[in-house]
Amino acid sequence: MPQRLVAPRNRSLWPWRRSFRTRALPATPSPPFPDEYAHAAVVTAHVPGPKSQQQRQRLAALQNTAAVGFFADYAASRGNYLVDIDGNRFLDVYGQIASLALGYNHPKLLDAMRDRTSLAMLVQRPCLGVFPPADWVDRLHRTLGAVAPTGLTDVQTLMCGSCSNENAYKAVFIWFQTKRRGGRAPSEHELATSMLHRLPGTPPLSILSFQGGFHGRLLGCLSTTHSKALHKVDVPAFDWPVAPFPKLRYPLEVHQAANEAEEARCLDEVERLLQHSAGVTEHTDSRIAGMVVEPIQAEGGDNHASPAFFRQLRDLAAAYDVAFIVDEVQTGGGSTGKFWAHEHWELTNPPDFVTFSKKMQTGGYYAKEAFRVKEGYRIFNTWMGDPAKMITLEAVLKVVADDSLLENVKITGNYLKTGLQDIADEFPALVSNVRGQGTYLAIDFPTEAVRNDFVNLMKMKGVASGGCGATSVRFRPSLIFQPKHAAEYLDKMHEVCKALVHT
Amino acid sequence: MPQRLVAPRNRSLWPWRRSFRTRALPATPSPPFPDEYAHAAVVTAHVPGPKSQQQRQRLAALQNTAAVGFFADYAASRGNYLVDIDGNRFLDVYGQIASLALGYNHPKLLDAMRDRTSLAMLVQRPCLGVFPPADWVDRLHRTLGAVAPTGLTDVQTLMCGSCSNENAYKAVFIWFQTKRRGGRAPSEHELATSMLHRLPGTPPLSILSFQGGFHGRLLGCLSTTHSKALHKVDVPAFDWPVAPFPKLRYPLEVHQAANEAEEARCLDEVERLLQHSAGVTEHTDSRIAGMVVEPIQAEGGDNHASPAFFRQLRDLAAAYDVAFIVDEVQTGGGSTGKFWAHEHWELTNPPDFVTFSKKMQTGGYYAKEAFRVKEGYRIFNTWMGDPAKMITLEAVLKVVADDSLLENVKITGNYLKTGLQDIADEFPALVSNVRGQGTYLAIDFPTEAVRNDFVNLMKMKGVASGGCGATSVRFRPSLIFQPKHAAEYLDKMHEVCKALVHT
Repeated sequence: MPQRLVAPRNRSLWPWRRSFRTRALPATPSPPFPDEYAHAAVVTAHVPGPKSQQQRQRLAALQNTAAVGFFADYAASRGNYLVDIDGNRFLDVYGQIASLALGYNHPKLLDAMRDRTSLAMLVQRPCLGVFPPADWVDRLHRTLGAVAPTGLTDVQTLMCGSCSNENAYKAVFIWFQTKRRGGRAPSEHELATSMLHRLPGTPPLSILSFQGGFHGRLLGCLSTTHSKALHKVDVPAFDWPVAPFPKLRYPLEVHQAANEAEEARCLDEVERLLQHSAGVTEHTDSRIAGMVVEPIQAEGGDNHASPAFFRQLRDLAAAYDVAFIVDEVQTGGGSTGKFWAHEHWELTNPPDFVTFSKKMQTGGYYAKEAFRVKEGYRIFNTWMGDPAKMITLEAVLKVVADDSLLENVKITGNYLKTGLQDIADEFPALVSNVRGQGTYLAIDFPTEAVRNDFVNLMKMKGVASGGCGATSVRFRPSLIFQPKHAAEYLDKMHEVCKALVHT
Repeated sequence: MPQRLVAPRNRSLWPWRRSFRTRALPATPSPPFPDEYAHAAVVTAHVPGPKSQQQRQRLAALQNTAAVGFFADYAASRGNYLVDIDGNRFLDVYGQIASLALGYNHPKLLDAMRDRTSLAMLVQRPCLGVFPPADWVDRLHRTLGAVAPTGLTDVQTLMCGSCSNENAYKAVFIWFQTKRRGGRAPSEHELATSMLHRLPGTPPLSILSFQGGFHGRLLGCLSTTHSKALHKVDVPAFDWPVAPFPKLRYPLEVHQAANEAEEARCLDEVERLLQHSAGVTEHTDSRIAGMVVEPIQAEGGDNHASPAFFRQLRDLAAAYDVAFIVDEVQTGGGSTGKFWAHEHWELTNPPDFVTFSKKMQTGGYYAKEAFRVKEGYRIFNTWMGDPAKMITLEAVLKVVADDSLLENVKITGNYLKTGLQDIADEFPALVSNVRGQGTYLAIDFPTEAVRNDFVNLMKMKGVASGGCGATSVRFRPSLIFQPKHAAEYLDKMHEVCKALVHT
């Protein structure tokens, strides 16, 4: 074990501090999670503990288990605390890779699932595109309609994030070709050649994406994913154009001039690719039909860009008449302090598509009506989502509103970010680039090995967290994460940082 | 309305028959569905009725509604009867595009969802690949493990059918490249080039598929789908090789010699493609890493081939060392009379992959252990399926066993098939090519227009059915479909056929 008994370093701004938890915490309008655990607790000598290890060995007879952290006791988990089968209790700032909206076993979600009127929606797997449930339109209005991004009136439910992005891509391709042929339906010749994967039925269209972006792992969206090589290697890909994403220096306000130059460089490259594409004939190279971008590149390392960058990107897409897809699979649902992260950009021309999943419980996309596919069965699959998840989503959205959770996210996020910056100031060689909005925050470590050490030491202190990119740790707590939880995190982080710098 | 008051034609084998329902029905060992409706009933002048039409208009403000049949009252639906919001009650032989395992609101499924110990699995969307639930391994053994195809020891849960096929393709590509480099992990050079979509990191591998096949609508699996042009047109595709699928004549036993010649022709073409691929260098053309085939081509028109054809196909895959993927998304789960349709082939060398979804409630694939990807996070996504659906699956499998539903499927299927053949014999210019196994049956009509008329007239008589291919109707009732339901179908079909031939 690393040493810990070392006095604070000179640069510390908190030489007088005993702990974050014992100081005054900012008030949040949100109620405390009922009967939540008081704090994290690790009771085994190692994590995963012996029971998890035993289960992992058993699972290894059936599949690769390299990604398994531990086996969870979901019935015992509550609020921000994820309990494992060895009785360890983790403060969860990873939130099931950003999928956890209201912590574990929120009473309102349990009530929704206990509601006997929901039973028929839990036991069937209906074809939502063919035989929608009686209350489907009302439920869409009460859920996805109630939080629809400004200007996007169409909505499709789908299964997961990858599926949502790929269907958005398909809708873009169909829109682009329909536009090319003056609004007509596909001709007999186009239909016939599509069965042979030949022109004109199968056009060499592309989706422009960004270095460091992540849009899923299916073969289409994996061609637009550029975050980690291990996700891509050995798998065939569409050779679509890729633009650089700004590599900004943090804090953003300190490096404004350099960051603006970097963003201008990337925008120039985007425009160059769009210009090239506009000159392409069908028979030479791929033509860009749309571009896809995350508001914050998550898997790629929590890379940010300025609202001005995104506004210009959106305008470039419009100028070259290609669709602008904003992938909010990870950023959507409130954790940046706004329900949709792209709201921070204050666009005058909304995105053409916004895709979602994770905290939204269901996958899907919003779109402007102009992008609606005219013919049936073209954006289609057997299930088109899962009505059971719409029941959960409805309960989630009601709690978000009733409990002022967006306000809670802003307050908790500000407090957590300030605390992270304090620790970064105290350990500048260890922690850097504190960044983010709401509780959607990240920090960097000097190397991948140190980052991994940090995550593992935090786990031994009872914190479940996750990395992203090569050297970052990302914060993806659920929306009920409050200042007291942030303080618990910061205290443990402070201890771990002290240990790490003196190892 | 077409005329109906016409005497049976000379060719009818049933001039004495009053109705299928009033004759003796074969006994099934399965209990009747409790409190099921006695029969179908249409109470509105048109289907969809006025309430469904009104809801469809409202939905049309949000999305394309061309595929919507009617709005269903799932709470009122029971057993084999799907009730719509206008109070119409349909005998369902389409089964939510083959997704319905035990009819609507089976009491054992309702019990499973009422079980309070399941609640924690209903309200979270956990990352099954990172934090599996406490009982995950046991549940896998009790469910997917209990019905695993012989010889396939690995299993992955996934989201839906398309996702299952694409992940199987990815696993095949990774296996193929790993084999090429002698079992080593990807090199630094391979990793680096994969980020640029360049050789050797991004190899031009392919999946061989068949004309008329359907494997989903995402960009990778859509490249192996060749059933309907409207699903493919305008969407970029991987230009992978496609082999002909046998076009057999039915009944199979009557046309044995011609069918064997047709199957030999297709197998020759498969071998030619495999031979060509084996001679390909990395830099010229795509190399076949695997082939994918449905046991019965469903969406493409319920096209069958003989067990001998599939055995030879499997042997060809082995001889050329490419993976053999059997797509059981639609055929799996019992409706052919065996739990997996490929069991009918009596392979000595099992498939390398079997993919599933639909009746299995969850997507996923089985694989031989040799195809397990060694590194973590390569066959991975955030959710890796949904534990809630494993609860439903467990209840489904228990009922399938306890109620002898595979036996019921065989008995009901034989009875239905015989009745369909009787009607085909009576109306030979209208109904032909009665084919299939278990209740997984199909019939053909002379044209697409007549087929569509038939489906619509049946709907007005209270039967929900679905087409496939250009001129076929497919039968996909749930496993609780009994002879009495088949008789109800046959009586209505007989009336509709009489009407159609005299229109």
